[in-house]
This record gives sequence, C-alpha cells and structure tokens, in this order.
Amino acid sequence: MKRTLPLPSLERLCGIYGLLDSLPETLGNRVSSRELGRAIGQTAETVRKDIAHMKADIVSAGGYDPAELKGAIASYLGLQEPRRACIAGLGRLGQAILRYPGFQDAGIEICAGFDSDTNKLELLASPVPLLPSYRITEYVQKEKISLGIIAVPPDQAQITADRLTAGGVRGIVNFTVPVSVPETVNMRHVSVLDELRILAALADGADQNIQEK
Amino acid sequence: MKRTLPLPSLERLCGIYGLLDSLPETLGNRVSSRELGRAIGQTAETVRKDIAHMKADIVSAGGYDPAELKGAIASYLGLQEPRRACIAGLGRLGQAILRYPGFQDAGIEICAGFDSDTNKLELLASPVPLLPSYRITEYVQKEKISLGIIAVPPDQAQITADRLTAGGVRGIVNFTVPVSVPETVNMRHVSVLDELRILAALADGADQNIQEK
Repeated sequence: MKRTLPLPSLERLCGIYGLLDSLPETLGNRVSSRELGRAIGQTAETVRKDIAHMKADIVSAGGYDPAELKGAIASYLGLQEPRRACIAGLGRLGQAILRYPGFQDAGIEICAGFDSDTNKLELLASPVPLLPSYRITEYVQKEKISLGIIAVPPDQAQITADRLTAGGVRGIVNFTVPVSVPETVNMRHVSVLDELRILAALADGADQNIQEK
Repeated sequence: MKRTLPLPSLERLCGIYGLLDSLPETLGNRVSSRELGRAIGQTAETVRKDIAHMKADIVSAGGYDPAELKGAIASYLGLQEPRRACIAGLGRLGQAILRYPGFQDAGIEICAGFDSDTNKLELLASPVPLLPSYRITEYVQKEKISLGIIAVPPDQAQITADRLTAGGVRGIVNFTVPVSVPETVNMRHVSVLDELRILAALADGADQNIQEK
C-alpha cells in the first residue's frame, strides 16, 4: 500500500494523541479542533486536515469525542501494539527516564538500562535489568527490543547508536550529539539547546526573517 | 519587514547550527549539504534550500566552510546575542539540565532554578540561585530572564507556565504535559513519550500510511 501521511502530520497526530492521553480531564465530552490546536501550538485548520487524513469514521460535528479520536489515532498509527524499549546511559537524564511512570500506560515497556560504569549499575535500584554497555547488542537482540533511548555523554554517542542498531532496534530517541544510523533506523534527535535556540530566534533575534505561525 | 522563514526551516537551521557547534571535529574543512542532511535526517536538497533561504554571502562550491556557515546562521537567527534562562522543577530532569555544561558556550546563561520543595532547595548544590517556585514571576522579571524550561510534575505544569509568562519570558521549553500560554509566548513541547510513539508508528505500526522521508 502507498504511504500517504507526511512526517509533520504524524508528529502532530502523536502530539494530539499525547494530549488526549495525558489530559483527558481538561477536555470534557467534546473537544474542538480549535482547542486541540491551541494545546499543541497549531491552527484549527491544520488539526482538522491531520485528522481528516486518517479517513477514520469519527464524528466531528460539535467537536470530537476525545476517547473516539484517541482510539482512531491509535488504530491508524499502530499504537495499540506494545513496544519494548531500552535506555543507554544512566546519568541524571537516563535515570529520570528510567523512573518515569507514564510508559507502561502508554504501551511502552522499558526493558533494560545500560551504562559503561559498572559501579553505577551496582548502586542504582531499578525494577528492570541494568547491564554494562558492551552487552547492548546481544541483549537488545535476545529481548527483541525495538526502540532505544540514547542518554550517554557525547563521546559515547556513536558507539551506542552502533550497538543499538546492530541489535536490531527500529527507532532511536537521541538526547546527545547527532549520530549516524542506517536508513532502516529512524532517529529522533532531542536537544534542549536546539529548542532554546529556536525560541531565542523566535523571540526577537530574527523577527524580520521568521514567518508567523 | 516581512517574516519569510517557515518554522520547519528555522528548526532545521537550528539543527544544523547545533551540529556545527557540537561536532566541528567530524566535519573537516568543507561540509556538503549531503553530509549535513544525513546528520540531521534530511535530504541534501532540503538543506540547500534552507541555507539558500538566508541569502547569506557564503561559498557553497565544494561544500560549505563549517565556521562560515555557523556564523551565517547565528547572524541570520540572532543567536550571537546572549540569553538568560531559568529552570522550573528540580527533579532528576531539571537537575540534569541545570548541570549541563554546554549552555554557557552556546550563549545561554541559566540564571536560576525553582522548585516548590524548599527542603530540596537547601540540599542541592548549585552555582546559580535556587528559589521557591512562588518567586518565579518576581525573579524572572527582576533578572530579565527571557527563556524558561518547565520540568515540574504534570499537576504543577500550568501554574508554572502562568508564573513564567507573568514574569515576561518570551519562550518556554516544556518537558511536561501541554499547557496554555498567551500567543506572545512561544512554546516548544518536548515529550519522550511522543517521540517514542512517532518512532513506533514509523517502525512498523503504520507502514502503509506513512510517507517515506
């Protein structure tokens, strides 16, 4: 079948899904495309187009039913299927992610944590196995882990990506410096510094150059 | 003057800038649009268009000079100007950001940290002032802080955004649930869960629906 959903629409649909998932109490019985758009920083029209893209059989008159919309997105994007993930790098950031309570509900099981410092592995308490980094490939392969999170220092970023890729992950969330991965692996680079720079540019640095949203 | 740079181009230029800034040693004397594209997950053509958008006086034959390109992006986006930022929420994530050594070099000064737990404020060692959350508005205003980072638990997210906004920040990086801010404030929502869902959808859940990059 032909692939038809552009990446920005996928990103927005995941944002809407996250909103429906994390804040159902604020949305009431019906939620309009305008409310959804305001919450994720998009126009009502963009939200309507993204939702229409799914060609799902959902009622939009008088707003969407949050549970129905959430179900439609999950079904369209294949989000019901549970996924296995692991974290490489157990510094403050890696530990924060390891202990984040929201994954299980979201159908994502954090199965393992890895760090190159074996002393640290002994000291950390964790409900999931913590293993030395050289075991990433073997363990990811054995446990059929499909998603990896990289939270290691910059000098370990590429070897960590290589180990995850060799183990067969299909996607990586990368919190450190950019790394190279084969085209078969999808990568999402998350950088606080990049986000702050985008905000700085939007705030006043380049008012004359940047398009209004 | 008219604003002409679309947000996705701004995001990509900040990604390229971050790459040039964090990995200069891997790029050599000249870097091609293809190499830049591969590193940030974009096509060479997209990178060329984004760079051309700046209408900067830079040589592109045989690849770009990394330092020259970095300077051109900084100048176009107003990134040379130093910025003052603060962090609200000093759990593991907030502490990880507070201690991240890369901000200073990037022209971003983390000026303060806030948390509602005053015991925690006393226990944490920090080179910058740590203050109780109810002081956010006053302190942000007094210190002319223009950027805020939200790393608080979900139930404190909205009040934290309100306090930062009342203090006059122009942009917020939000690591928690979506919050509402006035149109004058730019918001960047960062969610590991959203990123994992995007990867899950790209990996195999919706192969038939999603456009190839």
